[in-house]
Amino acid sequence: MTAVTLDKVYYLDELKYKPDLTKFEKEFKPKIDTYKTKIKENIPKEATLPKVLKDGTELPEDFDTAAFKGASKIGELSGIMTPKELKIVKLPGVEIVDKIAKGELTSVETITAFIKQAAIAIQVTNCAMEFFPEEALARAKELDEYYEKTGKTVGPLHGLPFSLKEHYAYKGKNTNAGFVSMIDNFTEEDALTTEIFRKAGAVFYIRTTQPQSLMCLDSYNNLVGRCSNPHNTALSPGGSTSGEAALIALNGSPLGTGSDIGGSIRAPAAFCNIWGFKPTNKRVSLKGAIASYTDMSNEFVLCSVGPLANNPEDIKLYMSTFLDAEPWKADNYMLRMPWRKDVKLDLENLKIGIVYDDSVVKPAPPMLRALKLAAESLKKAGATVIEWEALDVPEAMDIVNTCYNIDGNHNHVSRYEESGEPLNPLSENHLRFGHGFEQLSILDGLRYVHRRDDLRQKYNDRMNELGVDYILTPSYFAPAAIPHKIKYWGYTALYNILDLPGVTFPTGLVTDAKIDTKDVEYKPRNDLEAYEYPLYDEKIYDSQPIALTLHGRRYYDEETVEASKIIQKIISEAASSA
Amino acid sequence: MTAVTLDKVYYLDELKYKPDLTKFEKEFKPKIDTYKTKIKENIPKEATLPKVLKDGTELPEDFDTAAFKGASKIGELSGIMTPKELKIVKLPGVEIVDKIAKGELTSVETITAFIKQAAIAIQVTNCAMEFFPEEALARAKELDEYYEKTGKTVGPLHGLPFSLKEHYAYKGKNTNAGFVSMIDNFTEEDALTTEIFRKAGAVFYIRTTQPQSLMCLDSYNNLVGRCSNPHNTALSPGGSTSGEAALIALNGSPLGTGSDIGGSIRAPAAFCNIWGFKPTNKRVSLKGAIASYTDMSNEFVLCSVGPLANNPEDIKLYMSTFLDAEPWKADNYMLRMPWRKDVKLDLENLKIGIVYDDSVVKPAPPMLRALKLAAESLKKAGATVIEWEALDVPEAMDIVNTCYNIDGNHNHVSRYEESGEPLNPLSENHLRFGHGFEQLSILDGLRYVHRRDDLRQKYNDRMNELGVDYILTPSYFAPAAIPHKIKYWGYTALYNILDLPGVTFPTGLVTDAKIDTKDVEYKPRNDLEAYEYPLYDEKIYDSQPIALTLHGRRYYDEETVEASKIIQKIISEAASSA
Repeated sequence: MTAVTLDKVYYLDELKYKPDLTKFEKEFKPKIDTYKTKIKENIPKEATLPKVLKDGTELPEDFDTAAFKGASKIGELSGIMTPKELKIVKLPGVEIVDKIAKGELTSVETITAFIKQAAIAIQVTNCAMEFFPEEALARAKELDEYYEKTGKTVGPLHGLPFSLKEHYAYKGKNTNAGFVSMIDNFTEEDALTTEIFRKAGAVFYIRTTQPQSLMCLDSYNNLVGRCSNPHNTALSPGGSTSGEAALIALNGSPLGTGSDIGGSIRAPAAFCNIWGFKPTNKRVSLKGAIASYTDMSNEFVLCSVGPLANNPEDIKLYMSTFLDAEPWKADNYMLRMPWRKDVKLDLENLKIGIVYDDSVVKPAPPMLRALKLAAESLKKAGATVIEWEALDVPEAMDIVNTCYNIDGNHNHVSRYEESGEPLNPLSENHLRFGHGFEQLSILDGLRYVHRRDDLRQKYNDRMNELGVDYILTPSYFAPAAIPHKIKYWGYTALYNILDLPGVTFPTGLVTDAKIDTKDVEYKPRNDLEAYEYPLYDEKIYDSQPIALTLHGRRYYDEETVEASKIIQKIISEAASSA
Repeated sequence: MTAVTLDKVYYLDELKYKPDLTKFEKEFKPKIDTYKTKIKENIPKEATLPKVLKDGTELPEDFDTAAFKGASKIGELSGIMTPKELKIVKLPGVEIVDKIAKGELTSVETITAFIKQAAIAIQVTNCAMEFFPEEALARAKELDEYYEKTGKTVGPLHGLPFSLKEHYAYKGKNTNAGFVSMIDNFTEEDALTTEIFRKAGAVFYIRTTQPQSLMCLDSYNNLVGRCSNPHNTALSPGGSTSGEAALIALNGSPLGTGSDIGGSIRAPAAFCNIWGFKPTNKRVSLKGAIASYTDMSNEFVLCSVGPLANNPEDIKLYMSTFLDAEPWKADNYMLRMPWRKDVKLDLENLKIGIVYDDSVVKPAPPMLRALKLAAESLKKAGATVIEWEALDVPEAMDIVNTCYNIDGNHNHVSRYEESGEPLNPLSENHLRFGHGFEQLSILDGLRYVHRRDDLRQKYNDRMNELGVDYILTPSYFAPAAIPHKIKYWGYTALYNILDLPGVTFPTGLVTDAKIDTKDVEYKPRNDLEAYEYPLYDEKIYDSQPIALTLHGRRYYDEETVEASKIIQKIISEAASSA
């Protein structure tokens, strides 16, 4: 067993995977080209971007290489969206379903607006892996007809446009999870998530992109390439729920589904400045969510499925719709825990620990500014705020990184070998996590489980001692990541190994190059910090929005969402008057 | 990986543990003698058994070698118990706490009665590992004084005598879990279970016995020897919660705590003809429950802590008291699932699958008779009853047996090596389960987890298809076990690997040598059945009570207890009129 150390940046061991580029080019490249072309072909003509906007802004030829920051205005300034459509795409999901249920909106006009806005998001950020407006319009028409005939809705999401991260199995469509080798994998059944939202009346029209391996907080795969940050196309949207976050941030979808085993909902939500919720494990269903594992189950660290949206009410709409369907009857793996709708919290009873530094990688200046504003505004509003001192984060990282690769990379490498696809730098990074290619004995593996459980108990005890129910933290040391660079997941992965629910939300603050200047004097405490901390640069990050994440106690998901709603309101009000 | 097979009786592999009898005799025997003497010394003089009872019955010198069947009458016929004391020990726990709370009984007179009745049970069955009447009386006195002063109780169990399986850590006392090497392990803190019931007002006076290894459905350990079945001392009380079941069956305790990873609550409850409840994993706390593991956590198959009692109301009292204390706040490993007290079931909506044969070891004639009576009486009463056809039981046994020994026996052997103690035949049996001493790779281990989860889903799907919510089954192929013989756990361990809650209850029937004659013509289908099935003999089992077990859906613990209450009433009424 190696000792707990952070003195490596995950590039020291031999990499036991050799891409087979001949095989990849010959057998898979043509399929990939068809796959990509299909997305482009489905962009409606009326939603094709002009070269110049009404205000004279020239749109770049290639957003991928530009640092374009004006995506949110394209809908209006391109003339693609009508004023009514612009209004529709900015409505919260809860209002959309309410208006459709009251007959004030139709499913068809709603999905039409979102298809156009999504088309804009796809062209700017490359957020889609599959786009099927025709099917969506047909479904919306069916729903309108049903409503007209019966005066009723089919379910709580009747007519709501709903986006899906690609790796959820979708009846009759290819599900590849970002692995080239799975480009021919047509799934016969919906994932349970897909099925439940479909039955609830959701209208599907887009499946969004994710990085190769799913194990990056970034967005590149060999099928569609890189997805861009909607606020600055030179930055990463985060990952692995990359496309969802980019799409929702640009109002291309009101509500979508992601998954998070190391930060994959929270990091993209933060980088794209939207709301994202990672529930406690097993409160949601993984049934039909495709990843690298085939015949083994890694229960040492688990993924959580959860929503991304533009507001907390839609987060709750997702959770209650999903859990009201009693999914545990269909999926034995899930907990039987209905969504509690009666949770009320008083600000005066909130005690929040704030993470100013996790002891591994210090937060960059804009993050510290946001945390300070949060602390001050929350105190002023009547909450109790204390500094949460870093607790065994290197130990946590050793455990979680070992648990990710507990199969000695067997499954990931098998998926790669089938296509010979080349590896992203960050997929390589993931393969070198923990014990890398080493096959631990089961006894040593279960010792990690023991350490994991001890760590969870230690955090639990500390929260009890301090009376703290919530931990407010950056989701990453910086407001977003540089493409292909993010190696440190500590600010999110810690809470995966602890299995605490977490809600990411916008603070209303943005990075200000004038005040958030890089601390060039700072002396890194370890190799990882020496690598990661210098990646922040106020010139690159200028005007990038700043989000934070609130984690709560295990199984206190409802309280965590409710608390984040209260807290976000206070912080964003303070930000707007700051 | 070995194929799924039952064609071995767990004695084919080399046993990689050699006892060190010299070390054991020299270093540990004197400590064991002191340990045993202390139990005897604490038997109150007035509760010492006479040689002859009032009705002329001679009590055997050595119950262990006799087939004594009259233990339940000793209290009355020995004159040890006063008429009032006899009434007290037969009261349900819920009535005891009610009477104490109303001032109709004192804690001291209650515990006095139970101490005497427990002393009888100890002398007949050898059910104790620790007996401390003086401490109990002092605690009861304190509680009475508190009640007198304040008119209030300290909690919902105020004054209730409460027995504890020894392996729950008890503040200031030795906790050895049946391992000789742990005879000097004095625990500083209570197990969470102990702590919660202590705070609720329970009065502790006895810690009950368990087998070496805790991995037997039998009762022998090298500290106190064998525990006997309270209905026939030639039979086994079952295990591993051996002492609890024997004690409660003889009214030496109204309510106690056990644990079950392969049948360790349900088998002894069945063999001793009382109620026992194995909850779904993680609804109860394992914090401070000592077993073989030290620095590893085996989450492949988990233990459930749960109650043993003489009626379903006391099962509910245990669960609600425990979960009302919100133990998940103290124990991060537990689920946050309060005990639902409002569950109501209608007989007409109950659909029950009955297991007449699990395809591995056929139930003996008295069990089949009980199952048939159950089916007929339930149908007549209005429930829907179908035959539950055996589903992949050999696969389940391969998985669960492999999961038990997933550490290649490292932990058990380490515990044995420290004392050099000799092994029971059934501890040897356990070491040979699954892959025995083989150290699987973690990848192969996680393939078992995958198969486990597939199996769980398969059962879930089958229950959905059939609309069956409950499975009624024997707890063993026979009404009880022969000491040192029980190797087949399939009727209980299946539901551990499936993680389904189960309630064992008396049917009211007893084995009848005249009608329940052994089927000597039966042709066993595998080696295990060839070993186990002939162990039943109507002459040995004559008059032994017959219990059954009802399993419900995962996390439907409350419904399972409620359904078992309804079902047991119907079956036992039919039995009494049969």
